[in-house]
Amino acid sequence: MTRTQITLVQIDNYGPWTVTPEPRREVDLQTLQSRLYADLCQQIGREGGYVFFARFDNMIAVTNGLDWADHELIQESIANRYPVSVSMGIGTGTTPQEALAEATGVLQTAGSAQDGTRTEILGGDVLDEDERAAKGVQVAHFDVIDVTGTYTDRVDAFETFIAIEQGYAALMRYMYGQHDSLSFFVGGDNVIAVCPDLPASAYEDAIVHVSGEVGVDLQVGVGRGASAHDAGMAAKHALEECRHNGTRVERALPADD
Amino acid sequence: MTRTQITLVQIDNYGPWTVTPEPRREVDLQTLQSRLYADLCQQIGREGGYVFFARFDNMIAVTNGLDWADHELIQESIANRYPVSVSMGIGTGTTPQEALAEATGVLQTAGSAQDGTRTEILGGDVLDEDERAAKGVQVAHFDVIDVTGTYTDRVDAFETFIAIEQGYAALMRYMYGQHDSLSFFVGGDNVIAVCPDLPASAYEDAIVHVSGEVGVDLQVGVGRGASAHDAGMAAKHALEECRHNGTRVERALPADD
Amino acid sequence: MTRTQITLVQIDNYGPWTVTPEPRREVDLQTLQSRLYADLCQQIGREGGYVFFARFDNMIAVTNGLDWADHELIQESIANRYPVSVSMGIGTGTTPQEALAEATGVLQTAGSAQDGTRTEILGGDVLDEDERAAKGVQVAHFDVIDVTGTYTDRVDAFETFIAIEQGYAALMRYMYGQHDSLSFFVGGDNVIAVCPDLPASAYEDAIVHVSGEVGVDLQVGVGRGASAHDAGMAAKHALEECRHNGTRVERALPADD
Amino acid sequence: MTRTQITLVQIDNYGPWTVTPEPRREVDLQTLQSRLYADLCQQIGREGGYVFFARFDNMIAVTNGLDWADHELIQESIANRYPVSVSMGIGTGTTPQEALAEATGVLQTAGSAQDGTRTEILGGDVLDEDERAAKGVQVAHFDVIDVTGTYTDRVDAFETFIAIEQGYAALMRYMYGQHDSLSFFVGGDNVIAVCPDLPASAYEDAIVHVSGEVGVDLQVGVGRGASAHDAGMAAKHALEECRHNGTRVERALPADD
Repeated sequence: MTRTQITLVQIDNYGPWTVTPEPRREVDLQTLQSRLYADLCQQIGREGGYVFFARFDNMIAVTNGLDWADHELIQESIANRYPVSVSMGIGTGTTPQEALAEATGVLQTAGSAQDGTRTEILGGDVLDEDERAAKGVQVAHFDVIDVTGTYTDRVDAFETFIAIEQGYAALMRYMYGQHDSLSFFVGGDNVIAVCPDLPASAYEDAIVHVSGEVGVDLQVGVGRGASAHDAGMAAKHALEECRHNGTRVERALPADD
Repeated sequence: MTRTQITLVQIDNYGPWTVTPEPRREVDLQTLQSRLYADLCQQIGREGGYVFFARFDNMIAVTNGLDWADHELIQESIANRYPVSVSMGIGTGTTPQEALAEATGVLQTAGSAQDGTRTEILGGDVLDEDERAAKGVQVAHFDVIDVTGTYTDRVDAFETFIAIEQGYAALMRYMYGQHDSLSFFVGGDNVIAVCPDLPASAYEDAIVHVSGEVGVDLQVGVGRGASAHDAGMAAKHALEECRHNGTRVERALPADD
Repeated sequence: MTRTQITLVQIDNYGPWTVTPEPRREVDLQTLQSRLYADLCQQIGREGGYVFFARFDNMIAVTNGLDWADHELIQESIANRYPVSVSMGIGTGTTPQEALAEATGVLQTAGSAQDGTRTEILGGDVLDEDERAAKGVQVAHFDVIDVTGTYTDRVDAFETFIAIEQGYAALMRYMYGQHDSLSFFVGGDNVIAVCPDLPASAYEDAIVHVSGEVGVDLQVGVGRGASAHDAGMAAKHALEECRHNGTRVERALPADD
Repeated sequence: MTRTQITLVQIDNYGPWTVTPEPRREVDLQTLQSRLYADLCQQIGREGGYVFFARFDNMIAVTNGLDWADHELIQESIANRYPVSVSMGIGTGTTPQEALAEATGVLQTAGSAQDGTRTEILGGDVLDEDERAAKGVQVAHFDVIDVTGTYTDRVDAFETFIAIEQGYAALMRYMYGQHDSLSFFVGGDNVIAVCPDLPASAYEDAIVHVSGEVGVDLQVGVGRGASAHDAGMAAKHALEECRHNGTRVERALPADD
């Protein structure tokens, strides 16, 4: 069974900072955000976690494998190297949705995201050693079937981008609403979803739904593992199987699933 | 009148590279992509340009103000510092859509995005000095009205994210289809659109459309300038006016518009 | 007693790469080197290690606390994100000199630093769990007494820099020749030395020697710990004691030393 | 004739910041310093300038080609993205020493490097257009003859490092004292010196001096150009000639020199 630990990473009082005393240069804000995200990728990835940029000022991480001290170190390191600090709420749950709701609650209870005095919050609960060992994470890696032949090499770059965005918008909503899963666009034509225990049919339904709603055809590899990294690598290999076999859903799960 | 120069920056043969010889660690790919984007922000931003991450492997830049030599230098610098190289197609047009179509055509004509022998293409045409001086760029900066009070501090972080994504997906499609404009999510609740000469009514219609389609309420500041940066800063200041005045559309345009 | 684990990180075939096919832009090389170093700081620092830039193409790290898998992960991550790869030789010893000699031998035995076919070597031995727990690292943090008043605010920036460099060159040679210690300039007027068990008198002698040879007056804080980070933080606090007390040598060592 | 424009880039109040309220993690300071330096390389390099890390908290740049607005933009961009800000003093002179003395004076006059209220100073004078066009920069690129065969592949990594450091310390002092030149270690076994108009004999003397004083054998390529980049690339090519021809000094200067 899965048990997901989610950390919500929120830049403290970021909106007001970006326009104080004057609106700051957009390219500097973009640089700041994307570098902060890159650093978190490396820091959280060291322990097998994944972090998704989401809104950039509110990033969502799968942190099975990271304990309290790991979070403290990341928070301190960011404050030492950036003009902004971050707060982190941690939650756990049988589904990613449940875990994120808990993580969000930690920060909302502490105060507003735009309260200049609410900084460097660290709260919530991490998995204990036993749970971490016994349970795991399920990750699904979606992409668009033959995106290069269908779009990139054929229509203009923004039409391709629109197709991918519409597919993503439909998928994220469906997977959240139907399956308590959190789906994130990760570049190219790739979407990574963090899921509870879901059967193959759930993924087949999602693909049919997106195709029907916005006409974008997806395939998906699904993996399981102790950490997001382990599950995600299994999912990537499963997706390679889709590409190789021409199938829509491939799962690389432990034998007892 | 506007005349927009757009550069399509495409990572060469990126899809195959990410899975050769084995799928690479996701956190490393995310780090690579977001740092490459951050570098382009700084390099293109030096001359007043804007670059948007879009699909990350296909980034779209507004490059009025950058000449051929500027592009060559960026391309060389990327190849010196990253394990991947980039191709760049440049186009110009009365509308951003027209410019991007031209830029896309440059790369498509040169070969497939997944052709391992098609690397470091640089093609297309930059604005000549006269055009650059006489014409300019129009930039619109949208955000969600009171996103913190309505969403961030109230519902869970993914519900907020879904709302923003649905708003963005609706807006990008409308602005492209109706107004040949290119809209990009830039973090938080912000979307920046690169537009041709559009009247205030076009922005009002877009806001009404998005509100009607997905129930997300936007406001927008609009600016004009010789470069994306100049236009974008004017738009940011205009958006501050919206926040201050409680208006939906504010424009900071030269007197003769 | 101390037992130091040292990793020599060498960029593979770097010299030839910098001039192939033509000499590469110096600013790009500098950017590449310093960012690679910054990444190693974070990756090695996560487990309490320190890395020093030294020659940049040959970096020296104190890696007590990093096991074999940690090294593999760092090596893979670098190759995924840079146009160059790195080899790593690991050694351990009662003195840092001994450990580094062993680490160097690993790479030299594998082939030349400029052999294009000798890439991504990982060799040598890490401390076993017991040794790591029982033994530790000694770190000394030197700086120049009142560098701002004596130099920075008074003479030109290069004269200040010369003074610091001469002090460093004298200190590094003395500490290596007399005490098997490895000393690294770390910016400002700071030098961090990784040392075996040394008495206070050894540091006093070093300070007298540097003052006599090049006329630069140093103070030093000394710490001990299970990792370079622990020892280094103790050393920093001890150095603050020097500043506060006007003393030349302060040691923050466990009671049984 | 040469006319060098030098910018002294000083991190504001950096020493106190690194220990307030407690000493900060060394790896974070190293990361901050080296990334800040990497960014300056790219920003200053865009206009053909060079920047050297020197003490990291006091960096020295050759900025022929950068005007006042370029400096302002860099200063603003740093403040937008780092937890520290920088001050910059600009000077010009017939020799690099003269230019740096002037640049240093600008900052010293404004206040102490450790005065918390003296921040974001920008002062001094840039070259006017005519001077910039008519005059240029002389750059010498030194390295150690067969460093890999003599040192890297043969003795331990710290002995190699000591040899290079002693060579650098001797060279920097000699070139400054005798020739008003500023020499910087740039990684590997490379030293780049910014010089006034010097004849070949000056370089031969320097090489003989270093060999005599510390037993390290150097070769050097010398170039001239409108910018540091142009001069530096010519110097790199000349150094390749030394390697190819087995000569000690090669100069690639305009015909009229």
